[in-house]
Parts: sequence; C-alpha cells; structure tokens
Amino acid sequence: MEEIRLIEIKEEIHADNTEKANLLRTQLSKSKTFLLNLMSSPGAGKTTTILKTIETMQGKIRTGVIEADIDSMVDAEKIAAIGIEAVQLRTGGFCHLDAFMVEKGLEGLNLDNLDLVIIENVGNLVCPAEFDTGAIKNVMILSVPEGDDKPLKYPLMFTVCDVLLINKIDYLSLSDFNVDAAIARAKNLNPDIEIFTISSRTGEGIEKWTEWLVKEVNYFIHQQ
Amino acid sequence: MEEIRLIEIKEEIHADNTEKANLLRTQLSKSKTFLLNLMSSPGAGKTTTILKTIETMQGKIRTGVIEADIDSMVDAEKIAAIGIEAVQLRTGGFCHLDAFMVEKGLEGLNLDNLDLVIIENVGNLVCPAEFDTGAIKNVMILSVPEGDDKPLKYPLMFTVCDVLLINKIDYLSLSDFNVDAAIARAKNLNPDIEIFTISSRTGEGIEKWTEWLVKEVNYFIHQQ
Repeated sequence: MEEIRLIEIKEEIHADNTEKANLLRTQLSKSKTFLLNLMSSPGAGKTTTILKTIETMQGKIRTGVIEADIDSMVDAEKIAAIGIEAVQLRTGGFCHLDAFMVEKGLEGLNLDNLDLVIIENVGNLVCPAEFDTGAIKNVMILSVPEGDDKPLKYPLMFTVCDVLLINKIDYLSLSDFNVDAAIARAKNLNPDIEIFTISSRTGEGIEKWTEWLVKEVNYFIHQQ
Repeated sequence: MEEIRLIEIKEEIHADNTEKANLLRTQLSKSKTFLLNLMSSPGAGKTTTILKTIETMQGKIRTGVIEADIDSMVDAEKIAAIGIEAVQLRTGGFCHLDAFMVEKGLEGLNLDNLDLVIIENVGNLVCPAEFDTGAIKNVMILSVPEGDDKPLKYPLMFTVCDVLLINKIDYLSLSDFNVDAAIARAKNLNPDIEIFTISSRTGEGIEKWTEWLVKEVNYFIHQQ
C-alpha cells in the first residue's frame, strides 16, 4: 500500500481562481501531466470508477489521484491499497475544490512519474461545477439510481463537463431510468458532451471509456 | 392539479440566519404548522418519498410542500399533480436553502389550512446541513445505491438530522450496502437519530415512518 499524504485545507476565498486555474494548466503542459476533474453526487461511484479506470489502463498510463474528502480518508485508502500514488485533501466543511486547493494536491505528487492525475472532487452536483480546478477535462458521473431527470435539475454540471459517464447500468433492470432520455437531456444542454454508459462494478463499458481517455492523454502529452 | 406558485430566489448573504430561523419557529408555533426539512443527495428519492408520505397520511395530516430547485419545476409539478399545495423556489445556482428563502416559501402557502409543510431542500449532502431553515425537525435520506460509508464522508448532515430514512431498500439485493454498518455509523455521529428503512417506490417501511411523523405533528399542534 502506498503512503497517503494528507493535506488539510483551510477556507480562503480567492477572487482570482480562474487565473490560478489557467496558470496550473500552463504548468501541467510543461510537466506533461493531464489533469482530469471527476465530479458527481455522493455515492455515484467516483472511487470505484477511478479504481476500475486505473486497472484497465495499467501499463499504458501512469496515474496519480487527488482525493477530496470533507472528513475521512476512506477513498484515498482504497486508492493507495492498489499501489497508486494518492494525496488526500481534507476540506473541512468545504463543498468543492478550487484551483488553489488542487495546486496543493499537485505539490504532494511526483508529477515527473505521472501522465495523468485524476481529481476526485467532493460529492456534490452543485458547487464543484462553479469552480475551475485547472483540469484539462471535466468528467461527471450520473448513476442510474439517481434518475434520468438530473440534467433538468443540475444543468450547470452537465454544461461544464466534457464527458458524462452514466454509471451503475447494472441497476437498469430495477430502475425506470431511461438512458435515451438522459442522453437527450444532457446533449440538449451540451451538444459536444461525450457520453459512455458503464458499470464500474461489473466493468461493462469501461473499455470504451478508457480508450477515449488513453487517446486524450497521449494526444495531450505528445502535443506539448 | 394544483397551481404552482413560482418564487425566484436571489442570492443574499444573511449573517442573522439563525435568528430568522428562530423567529420562523415562533411564527409556526402560533400558526400550528409543523415544518419539516428534507435533505439528501441528488436522486436519493426526496420527491417520491414526499409523495408516498403524503399519500399514506391522507385524511390525518393536511400537508403542503416547498420545493427548492436550481432550475426546473419537475418536482413541484409531480406534487401539484396529486392536488397538494406546492410552492416552487427557484434558487438559481444556489446550493442550499436558508431561513429567509423558506420564509418566502411559507408566504406562498395558506398555512391556516396546513398542519405540516415539507421542504424539499436542494439535492446536496454538504451545504444544506450548515443552514437552519426554521424547521421543527430535520430529516435526511440516504439511499442504498449511494453506499453505507456516507456517514463517514458527510458527517455534519448525519449529525444535524433528527431522522435518517434509508431509502431504496428494494435495491439491497443488487448492492453490497450493509444496513447495520450504516446504522452504526450514523448512531456513532448522532446517538439520538431515529432511523427507518424504507422503499418509497414499493411502499415498504413507509407505514412506520409516517406513524412517527403523524405522532410528532399531532404532539406539536396540541402542545401549542
């Protein structure tokens, strides 16, 4: 198991978050590190999806993880248990990450050895959508048990994301979730959004999603 | 279908939210209206639970609903469709309700005809826990697909609530959710929390939860 670095975050309000996010992107271009910001409701499957994604990309992409949690380290422990470099940001009561917090997380990782850093944001469909973290791509998870009406109710999140992962499709048999309706609602807000249907538990659909991710990371690295 | 009153909420920061919440509680004592604040993650089943709860209490408790939604009216439409008085608060990007917003919602209802008003808060396990809405009781839903580790990760919500409804127990067969572990974790944070396991879809467990609620509402009304 990897040792987990724990970083305590204090609440500071930064007017210049977008500027800091742009600065981070410049630095990440230099270090050739692709930063991915993963967002969802609590319990939509962020940690399980990260674990499955890393497992599937093994040998292709060297990945590290920044975990954000209000008060526990359970997610970082799961990541470190499979030997992946992880930083835990403990956010106190904070409901989202901003670029300043992510910068602290990146300082805790050895970027020379990493092609990709995945941020597991605070579980929240509202606040994280409002803050640029410096990520190259924003990815959100909507899980089947949450319902296909979520794009109507949390539109900003669907608008700012480059990718929508519809997770827990193994629950479809028990649910009235309509995949086509969810896709149509998401595309209505954001016509360019890439959508993959997955089950991070059974592994269904993970191959297609990681193919996309590997391609994006390699394109980013070789472009710099 | 009842007509839905739509109230737009503008962002204002109030230093005296707790004071306003206490004032609301005094007014609610006078009007003999029990105010219940219902919170959860997006998609945990707040609207379905409200519908099932109202249906089960029909003829016993006269109920109205304040719906909070960032950008849609889908929930209020479902409530109004069964002939229940509903106010829709459209919160813009706001991630929670405070007592000032709830006051506006209460002004849109005819309290003389209501024993109980249920607030459906914004779907969010973080921010709503920090704001006193003036409610007599705070109730949260944790749904089975979200996972039994949520008390570890969103402790404040479990600490401020009087009742925990563990919803979607019809998903237990597909899930590794451990009900005993979830209950132990919630009780560890909040030994006095009342816990009911329910499925608002199948109706399982709703009877016990509404028995508790009817008793609380009647006690409150007759105490005043």
